[in-house]
Amino acid sequence: AAQEAAVRAQAEAVRRLKQDKADPDEIAKEVAKLLEMKAQLGGDEGKPKFVLKTPKGTRDYGPKQMAIRERVFSAIISCFKRHGAEVIDTPVFELKETLTGKYGEDSKLIYDLKDQGGELLSLRYDLTVPFARYLAMNKITNIKRYHIAKVYRRDNPAMTRGRYREFYQCDFDIAGQFDPMIPDAECLKIVHEILSDLQLGDFVIKVNDRRILDGMFAVCGVPDSKFRTICSSVDKLDKVPWEEVRSEMVGEKGLSPEAADRIGEYVQLHGGLDLIERLLQDPKLSQNKLAKEGLGDMKLLFEYLTLFGITGKISFDLSLARGLDYYTGVIFEAVLLQQENEHVEELVGVGSVAGGGRYDGLVGMFDPKGRKVPCVGVSIGIERIFSILEQRLEASEEKIRTTETQVLVASAQKKLLEERLKLISELWDAGIKAEMLYKKNPKLLNQLQYCEDTGIPLVAIVGEQELKDGVVKLRIVATREEVNIRRESLVEEIRRRTSQP
Amino acid sequence: AAQEAAVRAQAEAVRRLKQDKADPDEIAKEVAKLLEMKAQLGGDEGKPKFVLKTPKGTRDYGPKQMAIRERVFSAIISCFKRHGAEVIDTPVFELKETLTGKYGEDSKLIYDLKDQGGELLSLRYDLTVPFARYLAMNKITNIKRYHIAKVYRRDNPAMTRGRYREFYQCDFDIAGQFDPMIPDAECLKIVHEILSDLQLGDFVIKVNDRRILDGMFAVCGVPDSKFRTICSSVDKLDKVPWEEVRSEMVGEKGLSPEAADRIGEYVQLHGGLDLIERLLQDPKLSQNKLAKEGLGDMKLLFEYLTLFGITGKISFDLSLARGLDYYTGVIFEAVLLQQENEHVEELVGVGSVAGGGRYDGLVGMFDPKGRKVPCVGVSIGIERIFSILEQRLEASEEKIRTTETQVLVASAQKKLLEERLKLISELWDAGIKAEMLYKKNPKLLNQLQYCEDTGIPLVAIVGEQELKDGVVKLRIVATREEVNIRRESLVEEIRRRTSQP
Repeated sequence: AAQEAAVRAQAEAVRRLKQDKADPDEIAKEVAKLLEMKAQLGGDEGKPKFVLKTPKGTRDYGPKQMAIRERVFSAIISCFKRHGAEVIDTPVFELKETLTGKYGEDSKLIYDLKDQGGELLSLRYDLTVPFARYLAMNKITNIKRYHIAKVYRRDNPAMTRGRYREFYQCDFDIAGQFDPMIPDAECLKIVHEILSDLQLGDFVIKVNDRRILDGMFAVCGVPDSKFRTICSSVDKLDKVPWEEVRSEMVGEKGLSPEAADRIGEYVQLHGGLDLIERLLQDPKLSQNKLAKEGLGDMKLLFEYLTLFGITGKISFDLSLARGLDYYTGVIFEAVLLQQENEHVEELVGVGSVAGGGRYDGLVGMFDPKGRKVPCVGVSIGIERIFSILEQRLEASEEKIRTTETQVLVASAQKKLLEERLKLISELWDAGIKAEMLYKKNPKLLNQLQYCEDTGIPLVAIVGEQELKDGVVKLRIVATREEVNIRRESLVEEIRRRTSQP
Repeated sequence: AAQEAAVRAQAEAVRRLKQDKADPDEIAKEVAKLLEMKAQLGGDEGKPKFVLKTPKGTRDYGPKQMAIRERVFSAIISCFKRHGAEVIDTPVFELKETLTGKYGEDSKLIYDLKDQGGELLSLRYDLTVPFARYLAMNKITNIKRYHIAKVYRRDNPAMTRGRYREFYQCDFDIAGQFDPMIPDAECLKIVHEILSDLQLGDFVIKVNDRRILDGMFAVCGVPDSKFRTICSSVDKLDKVPWEEVRSEMVGEKGLSPEAADRIGEYVQLHGGLDLIERLLQDPKLSQNKLAKEGLGDMKLLFEYLTLFGITGKISFDLSLARGLDYYTGVIFEAVLLQQENEHVEELVGVGSVAGGGRYDGLVGMFDPKGRKVPCVGVSIGIERIFSILEQRLEASEEKIRTTETQVLVASAQKKLLEERLKLISELWDAGIKAEMLYKKNPKLLNQLQYCEDTGIPLVAIVGEQELKDGVVKLRIVATREEVNIRRESLVEEIRRRTSQP
């Protein structure tokens, strides 16, 4: 009864907050408390009612989703290994201060852990900052590594479009002092290889350089102090039209309309080597040291990409800005252009599936002496790719196997549990993937049905007669053919019949 | 200056707490705050001083550790797949209430997330409770799945012994209503296969049953209300001697000395089928319904394990209790007996490397109608196994490769960067794992040294003459042999020379 009174009081508090049009976050918090109190109070059956769900913005992966996920991972890992990368892993949380001051305006999306005594911790926001911390901590100045792990952002989830609060990143980075644009070109080659390999349809990789952006801002008359915030505005151009971005620049951020209009002219430019050449001749840009450096390197990058034969999918795009604070040079982002599969009627707005760039200053932020380690890297955004492949699979009605079982050990008569256990143990010990039903006396029909349902291709059937004859009856599920195999040849026969050609 | 004053004030606060002999947790918290304040104040160079570390009880995995980890995972996953398991994944955090009331006294070790508005979340403590939540939420009554992921416990870390706050669990569970002891026996077979496969030295798998324990407590005169807490005391027997456990039972937990002594007699018993038979005849135990049920099932289990040929490593052990609240039937734990490798001088106390049991009530706790799904499962404790293998590897001086690169694309003269880029691109596109140095004009010696250092077996050398002749010089690093290969045959030749026999 006391609990019920507490629930009523909380309900009243919520009502009042809503009436007062309080901060929505505040209201949400109190509503959550109310729901929890109600849940604890219990339901009709006197049993506590649980909110049976995963946290907001997260999801479980069932066996089918895992099968897709492992296919995608396998393609990505193959590519990373093909390029000679080592692999590392870091903890899911970092000291809070490790993440502080690395993400600019996005810092508010970091998940903090509760202060339970001891260190203040936060869940990692990406894999780049932990990588930089790892390099500085271990004084590594030279490494090519990949890292595949989950990262966490308290963002507004849009799950059907593959935007989650817990999501995988697949990162490949090259750290070290090298000749310009060689590692940068390899990162773009990797994005090209992975997106081609996964057959996600047509794509374009947009490329720009923070130095070109900064140079452009300078010649357009943006004051130095506004570079970052104007860069954030430009970053929105892939989602909102120029007019809106312009009014943000002029209205909210106090840029002069003339400067904004000059920016507007530049950011509509995109192209290839020809555009780079043209901008190198641009009377204003060519006078700016940063822009000139950036354009020179961009030209070199395009030469290397030409040798790789991938410039067809690369677009030098002056509207590309990338949100994160830590980039210092080349930046890029891969975008899927359309859904290739005609079975999927509704197009999914998937946007960017990979991104990255050069961040030469980040490791130095962790080094006590500020020693820099130049880095460039790429991050593949797996969740959006999953969304596409999942929907494609559903539409195609392709049956996907979720186990690799080669043979079901079955019996035709009763009282053969011991014989099944003996046989399956022999098969496991020989490395055969085998299952049996966990019943003392399963019906043969049920055993065969299990194979149909799960895609097991073979059934090894033991019966009184077979035991006497020293054979096992091997049934091929697809053709219903049955052959007697001598027990000592069974393993070999199963291997032969299930080996991938 | 204001900051410095704040630091001084905090230092004074810490001094006073210590002087007052305050709660150590409280002191630790204030010390952490002090350190953070000092760090933010900055060091000698005027740069902020970071505490460059991973959070307490966690660690990074470098490429070498990852190579070991992937070997172990591969052995474990092979085994799980051999037994026909599907795979699932769940979020790293759950609603706090999902974990509430599942872990008994250990609940205090759960990591909570900060309340940042919205739901209250906790990091998962194991993979079993999320699995049960997954089954109830999706109304799954029948599944065999594995799940490999990190779990989190705010325990006292002992990192050299492989005890971390963030650690991997590799879980295999069978859920469903089946005939007794068949899935249970398979779980033990799996532990046996994995520990044999990993060649960790001799081991024993201790087995007991919660019903036998409860029956034993009853006939020893433990009041029902004390079963759980006395069970927790028994659980400590693998770490502390009986005398200490006894005094905890009598002193702290208020058990009568007679009851404790009767328990003391039982818990020193261990053996095989013979012991089970003897206890089935025990005048007291045989009168207890629960104990009789448990012993009957234990007998059946041993019959199945005999068919699997693994009873040699199984010990029915009445002192095995397992800490977690949710077990309802068979429980087991695998212990390494000694370090096999003579190169390691100092023995590592590794203790339990796998454990599990039956938990028939857990899923029902999540179901609104309390519908039960019987489950049995095993969890392999990877970190301790890593510790052993890492130390063994260090002692053996075996060189472990951390990449799979087949060939380095090199040049003998200057000005051949473009040719190297063209060749490596061809190799990547043909699926060859290839690297090159990111220098415009690397010295041949440096390129060969890189192969020595990283174990790359082949070098594809381009030079002016080779380009003219349409060949590539292929150097075998181990033998220093060099052969000219026609460019169109190069991929085939590299594959041939690096294929695993």
